[in-house]
Amino acid sequence: MNRVRLGANPTVHETAVLGHPHGDDPGQTVLGADATVRAGTVVYADVGVGDRFSTGHNALVREFTTLGDDVLVGTNAVIDGRTDVGSEVSLQTNVYVPAETTIGDRVFVGPGATFTNDPYPLRVDEDLEGPTVEDDASVGAGATILPGVTVGEGAFVAAGAVVTRDVPGEQLAVGAPAEFAPLPERLRGGNEFA
Amino acid sequence: MNRVRLGANPTVHETAVLGHPHGDDPGQTVLGADATVRAGTVVYADVGVGDRFSTGHNALVREFTTLGDDVLVGTNAVIDGRTDVGSEVSLQTNVYVPAETTIGDRVFVGPGATFTNDPYPLRVDEDLEGPTVEDDASVGAGATILPGVTVGEGAFVAAGAVVTRDVPGEQLAVGAPAEFAPLPERLRGGNEFA
Amino acid sequence: MNRVRLGANPTVHETAVLGHPHGDDPGQTVLGADATVRAGTVVYADVGVGDRFSTGHNALVREFTTLGDDVLVGTNAVIDGRTDVGSEVSLQTNVYVPAETTIGDRVFVGPGATFTNDPYPLRVDEDLEGPTVEDDASVGAGATILPGVTVGEGAFVAAGAVVTRDVPGEQLAVGAPAEFAPLPERLRGGNEFA
Repeated sequence: MNRVRLGANPTVHETAVLGHPHGDDPGQTVLGADATVRAGTVVYADVGVGDRFSTGHNALVREFTTLGDDVLVGTNAVIDGRTDVGSEVSLQTNVYVPAETTIGDRVFVGPGATFTNDPYPLRVDEDLEGPTVEDDASVGAGATILPGVTVGEGAFVAAGAVVTRDVPGEQLAVGAPAEFAPLPERLRGGNEFA
Repeated sequence: MNRVRLGANPTVHETAVLGHPHGDDPGQTVLGADATVRAGTVVYADVGVGDRFSTGHNALVREFTTLGDDVLVGTNAVIDGRTDVGSEVSLQTNVYVPAETTIGDRVFVGPGATFTNDPYPLRVDEDLEGPTVEDDASVGAGATILPGVTVGEGAFVAAGAVVTRDVPGEQLAVGAPAEFAPLPERLRGGNEFA
Repeated sequence: MNRVRLGANPTVHETAVLGHPHGDDPGQTVLGADATVRAGTVVYADVGVGDRFSTGHNALVREFTTLGDDVLVGTNAVIDGRTDVGSEVSLQTNVYVPAETTIGDRVFVGPGATFTNDPYPLRVDEDLEGPTVEDDASVGAGATILPGVTVGEGAFVAAGAVVTRDVPGEQLAVGAPAEFAPLPERLRGGNEFA
């Protein structure tokens, strides 16, 4: 078995690493067509990616992760494994996605947003559970999303917000801790990728 | 044409990349005298930098960017292109500067501060417009600056602030969303680089 | 003198750099047994580390720093030098620790947390003084800790908090600026590493 299988027309920088091993028996990593993997990026073994994958510099995608088509993982962005991401998703520079996260289709996550998966690190023995970001939701720059929180379909988390509980669909979440309000008219209707 | 022109006395780590190509017809990148470019740093083509440029590790400066003299781009800091930066400017570790940003002279940006340029990503079709940070302004660690916002001359954005509207000159911006107050006496008078 | 001394059973990625020089007369860097140093990580000269050191990708540890046993420095995390860290400490992805910081034993720092050491950068000439994080304290994701602040023994800083003054031991710090409350019963008793 080849540890890495690339689709047609790949552009992979010479310093990028695909199929980085983990554990004792790492599996295959598969990238679809037209991938662009920039310098310093590391994609572990056991990752499945659709077509038109694109990364910034020094992006990291760890094991047991699936990404759909047209996914961007920005410069220094990290997906820490065991995560599912839909299609037409943009994770901007410095975004952190912990293990056990679920991200839908047409999701935008702004620069420096941080997701978490452990409510009481080192204190209480709980299962790790990252956020769920539903289809067409957007998370603003520098926002922090607490473990297990769901950001509902079409919701919009403002820049710098700290989201401590579920955001209903089509709501705007603002502040720290974030409070919710109906989305202004002009922000309704979901995300549209070019 | 050489894609990279270096001034006198450069120190460029062997893993740094200068003049990284973009698009179909990348132009020249020019660095002034006494540059120090640390490991893993990437500077794209079409970047002009003054004297005594200094970077941390894994810094990134994208295309169509100008930097004055005595500019520090810290470890993991990113300037995402089409940005003008003055002289005697310090962008600390993990700072993110999006495209279409303007930064004056003697500006300090603390670690983890995030600037943004898109008020409604994927929702409303607007031109990208990053912040403008005027001369002698300082932005604290972990602050988030919304698109198109101006941080006025000599203003001081506190650590962790979320700045949603223009900060007048010589004002202190604190909180999320940031509110303004006159600068305490000891913080007036602009920045002084050693 | 060898600039780097490694304990038994090291795993050091070929792109990692140990003993990176600084200044004119860099000293020795010593790692204990069973170190795992991942791709792109840089550890400067004059660093002393205990056993079972582990890093993510592109971690950075600068000079005149000591780390105890069982320390994790996560992906893109930065310790900017002249810092002492105890044993059983976890600094997660994108954590920033400035120079002149002190971290005790059994401390957890969540992803994207930013510590600072300069209250009035470029304005007032003060000595740099980073935070002190005492034994068994935890700092949540995306939190910002102001210069010179002490996070007391067993305290818990919530995700996204901006901590502007000392947190007493066994207190919970929440909000921006953070306010304090007694720790809930289930969070008392310190941290336990597996």
